[in-house]
Amino acid sequence: MKRILLLGAGRSAASLIKYLCDKAATENWRIRIGDIAVSHLQPLMDVVTCVDLINFDVHNDRQREEEVRQADLVISLLPAAFHIHVAQECLKQNKNLITASYVTPAFKTLHEEAQEKGLTIMMESGLDPGIDHMSAMALIQRIQAAGGKLTSFKSFTGGLVAPESDTNPWQYKFTWNPRNVVLAGQSTAKYIKNGEYKYIPYHQLFRRTDDFFVEGYGHFEGYANRDSLSYREPYGLDGIPTMLRGTLRRPGYCAAWDVFVKLGLTDDSYTLEGSEKMTHRSYVEAFLPPATSEGQSITERLAAYVAIPADGAVMQKLVWLGLFEETPIEMTGATPAQVLEKILKAKWALAPGDKDMIVMQHLFEYEQDGELREITATLVATGDDKTHTAMAKTVGLPVGILAKLLLQGQITNKGVVIPIHPELYRPVLEELKQFGIDFIEKERVL
Amino acid sequence: MKRILLLGAGRSAASLIKYLCDKAATENWRIRIGDIAVSHLQPLMDVVTCVDLINFDVHNDRQREEEVRQADLVISLLPAAFHIHVAQECLKQNKNLITASYVTPAFKTLHEEAQEKGLTIMMESGLDPGIDHMSAMALIQRIQAAGGKLTSFKSFTGGLVAPESDTNPWQYKFTWNPRNVVLAGQSTAKYIKNGEYKYIPYHQLFRRTDDFFVEGYGHFEGYANRDSLSYREPYGLDGIPTMLRGTLRRPGYCAAWDVFVKLGLTDDSYTLEGSEKMTHRSYVEAFLPPATSEGQSITERLAAYVAIPADGAVMQKLVWLGLFEETPIEMTGATPAQVLEKILKAKWALAPGDKDMIVMQHLFEYEQDGELREITATLVATGDDKTHTAMAKTVGLPVGILAKLLLQGQITNKGVVIPIHPELYRPVLEELKQFGIDFIEKERVL
Repeated sequence: MKRILLLGAGRSAASLIKYLCDKAATENWRIRIGDIAVSHLQPLMDVVTCVDLINFDVHNDRQREEEVRQADLVISLLPAAFHIHVAQECLKQNKNLITASYVTPAFKTLHEEAQEKGLTIMMESGLDPGIDHMSAMALIQRIQAAGGKLTSFKSFTGGLVAPESDTNPWQYKFTWNPRNVVLAGQSTAKYIKNGEYKYIPYHQLFRRTDDFFVEGYGHFEGYANRDSLSYREPYGLDGIPTMLRGTLRRPGYCAAWDVFVKLGLTDDSYTLEGSEKMTHRSYVEAFLPPATSEGQSITERLAAYVAIPADGAVMQKLVWLGLFEETPIEMTGATPAQVLEKILKAKWALAPGDKDMIVMQHLFEYEQDGELREITATLVATGDDKTHTAMAKTVGLPVGILAKLLLQGQITNKGVVIPIHPELYRPVLEELKQFGIDFIEKERVL
Repeated sequence: MKRILLLGAGRSAASLIKYLCDKAATENWRIRIGDIAVSHLQPLMDVVTCVDLINFDVHNDRQREEEVRQADLVISLLPAAFHIHVAQECLKQNKNLITASYVTPAFKTLHEEAQEKGLTIMMESGLDPGIDHMSAMALIQRIQAAGGKLTSFKSFTGGLVAPESDTNPWQYKFTWNPRNVVLAGQSTAKYIKNGEYKYIPYHQLFRRTDDFFVEGYGHFEGYANRDSLSYREPYGLDGIPTMLRGTLRRPGYCAAWDVFVKLGLTDDSYTLEGSEKMTHRSYVEAFLPPATSEGQSITERLAAYVAIPADGAVMQKLVWLGLFEETPIEMTGATPAQVLEKILKAKWALAPGDKDMIVMQHLFEYEQDGELREITATLVATGDDKTHTAMAKTVGLPVGILAKLLLQGQITNKGVVIPIHPELYRPVLEELKQFGIDFIEKERVL
C-alpha cells in the first residue's frame, strides 16, 4: 500500500481529493489529508474509507516531520509560501513532492540535492502554471518535429464565469483568491515582439490589451503577465522573435480596472488614515484632485482625472459597484487594496448555482515549407458545481495524474521538475480528456 | 582643545569645512576629516593648519572605533545608509553626533539609550530636512504665541539653477545626486487638505502640481513629497486641516518628467535585456506600444500614448535631450532608471561658472482675531561658485553652527534630536543671516 499525504485542502483541492479517492482502491492507496482545519471535509468521511483527516500545522516541526515520515508521496496545496518548509522536510526524508505552484528561487537551490538523492520535486503542475506548460510543449514539439520554425507564441489564460452565470456588467466574478485578483500585474510586464524587448509599467498594463476570440464563447481581452520571457529557455524557444503570456478577461473589464490603477486603489503598501470612518465615496474622494470647475460631481471629477467619458461603459461599471455610495467600509488600518477587495467581494461573489469557466488560448505562428502558418489551441473548461469548479478540476486533476504516475514509478525526471517533458505531459494530457479537459486546435496559412 | 571628526567629505561638505576652519582658532578646535578618498581635499592643506586628512573606511571596525575614540564630536556626511554604524560607535563611546539626514526607524531605536547616556544625536540638520524645520518652527511658534490658530501649512523646497545659469528648456540642471532626482517621488504621496487625507500615486504625482511665485525669481511649480503627515506631531500641528510638503521645479518641468514616469523610464527594479546594444531611440521604443496608424513617427506614437501634443513644449524638452537619437547607451545590465540618469547627466551637467539656487517657500494660513491671514516666508540662496554652491552652504552651515553650539555646551536636548526646539533653531537661523541665508516674509489678510 502507498501512502499519500495531501497538505492543504482549500477550495481548489476538491477535484484532486475526488480523483485520489476514485483511484485509491485500484492503486492501493491510503490518503491522509492535513489542513489547518479539516472539519469542512467531514462529509467526505461518510462516503470514502480510504482517507484520514488530520489537523495539520505546517509550522509544527514535529508534526511535519512525523507526517512526512509516514508518507510515500507528499502533495502540497498549502499557500505557496509554505511549500518550501514541506520541501525541505521531504528532502531530508527522501520523499517525492508535488505542488501546483511556481518554482521560486528558494526551490531552485534544492534542485541539485534532490537530483543527487534521486528525488522528484514536481512543481507548476496545476492549470497556470501546469496545463499551460503541458499543452504548449506538446504543440511546440509537434511543430518542431515536423520541421516548423516557431516565430511567435502567445498564451493567455483566464479564470472567469461561465456564460450562464455571466450576469454583471464587469462579466466577472471571483472564482479564486480575490486578493490575488486585486494585486494582479503589480510589476512591469516584460515580453518580446518581433525581436524587440518590450516593457509595460503597471499603470499602463490595463490599457494595452490584445483581443481574443473563442468560437462559441465570443470575445475576450488579454493583458500581459509579469514575465513572458522566463519560459523561452525551458520551452526550447530561445531566439523566438515574439513571445507573450497573459491573462484573459471579458472585453471592457481592463478599461474599467485601469481606473482603479490610475486612482491608486490597488496599492497594498500603506494603510489609509481613518479607514474605519470611510465610506465607498470618501475612499474614492481621497484619491481625487480638487474640482476644476464649480459644481462638478464626483463622477465628473473622476472622469476628467482618468480621462474616461462621464457616462460611458466604464463609469457604468464603477457606479454598479456602488463606488460612489455612502456605504461604510468598516475596516480598521486597511490598505487601499484591502478596501477595494471588500467592495468587490460584495458584488463579485458567485451566487448559488453559478459556474466558473477556465479559458486558455495558445496562438502559435511558424514557418514551414516556405509558408507562414498559425495554430490556435483553445481550452474551455466549465465547472460542474460549486465544489468541482473549473478551477478545482484544472488545478487538481493534473496534480492527481502526476501523483499517480510518480507512485507507479513512471516518472524518471529527478530534481526540481516542471511538466515540460513528453513523458510527463503526454499521459497527463491524454487522461485529462476523460474529464472533458481538452484543447480544440485550428490551423491556417497566414 | 576640542576635536571634531568629520566623516564624509563629498561635494556638500565644502562650506561646512570652511566654516569649521574659520572658527577653529577662536573655538580652539582640531578638525579631522575622513573620507574614502581625501586626495581632492589636499589643496585645503596648503591654507589651513587646523585640519588632518585621513582615508576612512566606515566598514573598518577598528578604524571606526579608533577615530571615534579620539573625537569630542562626530559629524557624519557619509551616504545616509552608513550613519547608523557611526551612531552605534558614538553611543558605545559616549560621543555626540550630528548628521543632515532623516531620522530612520533604526535611529529611533537609539533614542532612549542616547537619552540615558546624556548624549545628543542631532539629525535632520541640513537644508531639507533642516532649515525647513527651523524656519517653519520659528514661524509656527510665533503665530501660536500671538494667539493665531494655524489652518494650513504648505512648504516647498527645490534645488535648482540660478537665473543666470538657467540655459536649457527644462530650466533644470543636476546640482545634487542625479540618482536621487531620477528616483524622486517613487511612492504614494500623502497629505491632508481641508481635513481630508489625500493620496497621490507615483504615476499621477507629476500631473498634480501647485503653482508658486517668488518675487524677483518668477514662477515655480511644486509636486507633493512622499509623506507630508509625519511632521504634524513634531511641529505641534496635530489636527491642522491642511498640510502639504513638496518639491519645487520651474513650470513645465513636471509635465515633461511625467512622460518618463508614464513610459516607465524611472523604474529601477529590473534590468533591461541587451542594454549594451541599445540607443536612446531603441530604449524609448522598448516602452512604446505599436503604431495605431501607418507611417506614425516615434514622436507621434509617444505623443499619442502619453497624451501630449506631438509638437508642444513637452515634446520640445524630450527632443532637446536627444531622446529619439541613435546615440549608443553603452551600459551593460542597466535598469531603465540608470539609462535615464545617463542621458540626463550628459545634458543637465553644470557648465563651468554655473551657479545653483535653493528656493524654499512656506505658506501659512491662520485665524486670528476673526481674520484669516496668510504668511509667506521665502528663502532664495544662490551659490558663490562651484565649490560653495547654494546646496553646500545651506546643508553645511546649519550643521556647522549646531556643531559649534554642541561643543560650547549650549544644547541641552538629549537623545535623537531634530532642530525643532527654540534653543536650537533661534541661534542657527540668526547666524545663517550672516551668510545671506535669510527668509523674506509677507503677510496679508485673506
